[in-house]
Amino acid sequence: MTHAPLLAADTRRFLEKTFPGDAAVTSPEEMFVYGADASRRHAMPSAVVRPSTVEQIQELLAFAQANRLPILPRGRGTNTVGDCVPTAGGIVVSTARLNRILEIDADDFVAVVEPGVVTGDLQAALAKERLFYAPDPASVKFSTVGGNAGTCAGGMRAVKYGVTRDHILGIEAVLPGGELIHLGGRTHKNVVGLDLTRLFVGSEGTLGLMTRLTLKLLPLPAATATLALAFADVDAALTAAGDVFRAGILPVALEFMAREAMAAVAAISDVPWPAEAGAVLLIRVDGSPAAVAADLRLLEAATSPAGPIWTRPAAARADEEALWELRRLLNPASFKAAPDKISDDVTVPRGQLRAAAAGIAAVADELRLKILLFGHVGDGNLHVNIMHDAANLDERDRAQTARERILSLCLTLRGTLSGEHGVGLAKLPFIDRQLSPLERDLMARIKAAFDPHGIMNPQKAY
Amino acid sequence: MTHAPLLAADTRRFLEKTFPGDAAVTSPEEMFVYGADASRRHAMPSAVVRPSTVEQIQELLAFAQANRLPILPRGRGTNTVGDCVPTAGGIVVSTARLNRILEIDADDFVAVVEPGVVTGDLQAALAKERLFYAPDPASVKFSTVGGNAGTCAGGMRAVKYGVTRDHILGIEAVLPGGELIHLGGRTHKNVVGLDLTRLFVGSEGTLGLMTRLTLKLLPLPAATATLALAFADVDAALTAAGDVFRAGILPVALEFMAREAMAAVAAISDVPWPAEAGAVLLIRVDGSPAAVAADLRLLEAATSPAGPIWTRPAAARADEEALWELRRLLNPASFKAAPDKISDDVTVPRGQLRAAAAGIAAVADELRLKILLFGHVGDGNLHVNIMHDAANLDERDRAQTARERILSLCLTLRGTLSGEHGVGLAKLPFIDRQLSPLERDLMARIKAAFDPHGIMNPQKAY
Repeated sequence: MTHAPLLAADTRRFLEKTFPGDAAVTSPEEMFVYGADASRRHAMPSAVVRPSTVEQIQELLAFAQANRLPILPRGRGTNTVGDCVPTAGGIVVSTARLNRILEIDADDFVAVVEPGVVTGDLQAALAKERLFYAPDPASVKFSTVGGNAGTCAGGMRAVKYGVTRDHILGIEAVLPGGELIHLGGRTHKNVVGLDLTRLFVGSEGTLGLMTRLTLKLLPLPAATATLALAFADVDAALTAAGDVFRAGILPVALEFMAREAMAAVAAISDVPWPAEAGAVLLIRVDGSPAAVAADLRLLEAATSPAGPIWTRPAAARADEEALWELRRLLNPASFKAAPDKISDDVTVPRGQLRAAAAGIAAVADELRLKILLFGHVGDGNLHVNIMHDAANLDERDRAQTARERILSLCLTLRGTLSGEHGVGLAKLPFIDRQLSPLERDLMARIKAAFDPHGIMNPQKAY
Repeated sequence: MTHAPLLAADTRRFLEKTFPGDAAVTSPEEMFVYGADASRRHAMPSAVVRPSTVEQIQELLAFAQANRLPILPRGRGTNTVGDCVPTAGGIVVSTARLNRILEIDADDFVAVVEPGVVTGDLQAALAKERLFYAPDPASVKFSTVGGNAGTCAGGMRAVKYGVTRDHILGIEAVLPGGELIHLGGRTHKNVVGLDLTRLFVGSEGTLGLMTRLTLKLLPLPAATATLALAFADVDAALTAAGDVFRAGILPVALEFMAREAMAAVAAISDVPWPAEAGAVLLIRVDGSPAAVAADLRLLEAATSPAGPIWTRPAAARADEEALWELRRLLNPASFKAAPDKISDDVTVPRGQLRAAAAGIAAVADELRLKILLFGHVGDGNLHVNIMHDAANLDERDRAQTARERILSLCLTLRGTLSGEHGVGLAKLPFIDRQLSPLERDLMARIKAAFDPHGIMNPQKAY
């Protein structure tokens, strides 16, 4: 275990005064937990605070800037790239107590929330009023709106509705130094000045600390339906996925799993597809009940030429949920499929999916590794889990080699290192393969405009 | 007529060498045209060039930076806020010869275009392959993809599909100094580094000169249908508009016209609504044929409680087009309704539309002015045309007073100065009412990161 860097006496006094009682976490055991995130990396923070007011954050960021102390914003720590890991020490700022839904306005179609609201809780509250916040990361039951905004989280519904960026109208944030800033606003359209709102989204906590978000809402679609299909192989499944779009259908979600991923799910749950299936698609449509029924028929017709070996349409909510639960089981299943995994979320142009999948399978073969392949293929977004046992040094090295080759392959196919997870620590070593020195320099200068002393989540993202 | 600032001899030589033949515009008469845009403002440029290669632009921006010459990017000059007017002199760079559709990829669902491509031409080319670029500004037949990106143009379909920002995946641009930069990419999702791509969108030509854009495409919806409705008054129409969303319908477009705007159209065209109508809604849905038929019935049911005095459903393409042509006639009609007009595109939270419309009507009454009111009410976006005769000084003053009051009213209702036109010159005097000094300072610093000597479209936007 890394030891916590010692706090200077005046820092300790400041934190005790500003975050009295259990608003500061002081036991090393509990602080330890705040040093990790879903990347499974760890570093010990110097301090952990749980503010419940904006004023506390303003005081903190004034003090931190004056004393050059790193600040690490943290929601539920579900990000997979190390954004919440205090590699440079510093003060972890948990948004756990900034968790109020401040407003749901069914006329304006906006919600105003504090950053620590769990996205799934918000969606449940909205559904009661037949309202809809579209972003839907797989972590929706655990992750926060603020964390989703910090990473520009994607998720299942991005095919039709876009990513978190497309649903944030306004941001209130505290900047290093303690100044409060209000970006964007409450209207669904707004083009006054440079778009600092969307610049904040996906900035991985490097520009300031969000304290309030205004979200764009849509009417809750009245109905959904799902078509599950199994194919003999990956190529047939990805051909069918392409055929969906060519048929003029814009599904809500278009998810894919290849054989090894299906096997991981089958190891912890009953599965409905036939044993010989080599790939599965899960496709969802939404709209009015009549529209959904018609679209389901269109989906069946569009995917038929690729030759599915099994299909299951589901229009009743319970039947649909049973299918989507299989998709949600993938993440827990992947942790049981081997002692360790390297996870990436490479994304390629949609037309390059078959080439990407074939290349990844070749890497797995050549390096004798099990790779779980699944993802949001409607967006060209592939989740690649390279399974291995890190205690086996040869296997660990092969896993690292596989990762390098897969990232290179996806860039060669004109893809991106990350479709929805972000860079954090995990992809920083590779970022020069995608961004030019000029781009990185511009990003550094923009960061300096917000954070001249580099205290916000240092050594991360870009 | 303002005279063109004289060019220094070395600038003249540089331009003649770099832009030979008719790649430079030299006659004062023709240059004069390049000094105006749809804002009806004018200033004489020092020079006008029409590059056809990226290299020409790189040379130009290197020379311009070294010599501190203003650069004014220009598409078709359809922006309404003065973004193309060379108030500080300088070199207008027309994208008229950068007008190639470089690529339409029906597998990747992307198009790659030069900035001077007319948006409507692109949409026509895409429709042949059943592909769809969603942004749809009213100027679509005349304005360019680059101009739309520079202003983050909105348009009719923003309700369902979002604005231009949401459909730009990648931008190639030349920065002051001549360096070429590639932002974003070709994938539908991408979260590597700060989002410079969307920062460029809506920057009104202040950061660099776009040379190539990669656009997100969707499947072309198989069918559309439109419901036109007339109401006795504005309040009933806007109540019906709200009821559409409350019924769970997300229309493609939800357009509104009030009495004076309807009269302006009626003055130049036959109109189908009854003479006693005080407001009209045009509502469009899209999707599969079965979905559209069902949604049209839902629309009729949802809008019925507000008591329309006339309805016309249209599912056949020609019938729909006849209705939308009435909407498109509004702009030409508005120019005939009085010698002069002040146009704004204020936007309020959707639930404040009735309050905004009532307040605007009260301003018109009190100041004895004709105000045409129409707009994209699905987004809360109101187009306000304050008609007057500027030769009548009292009337001109009243029109200015009306403008001030309407902008203040909309900000009081938590709206924004501009939903889709941008700031340019026209709204710069008001921008401090919406943006804080800290926000403006951040924008200035970000601009300085791209454009340290302030040569890109100076004195505009923020």
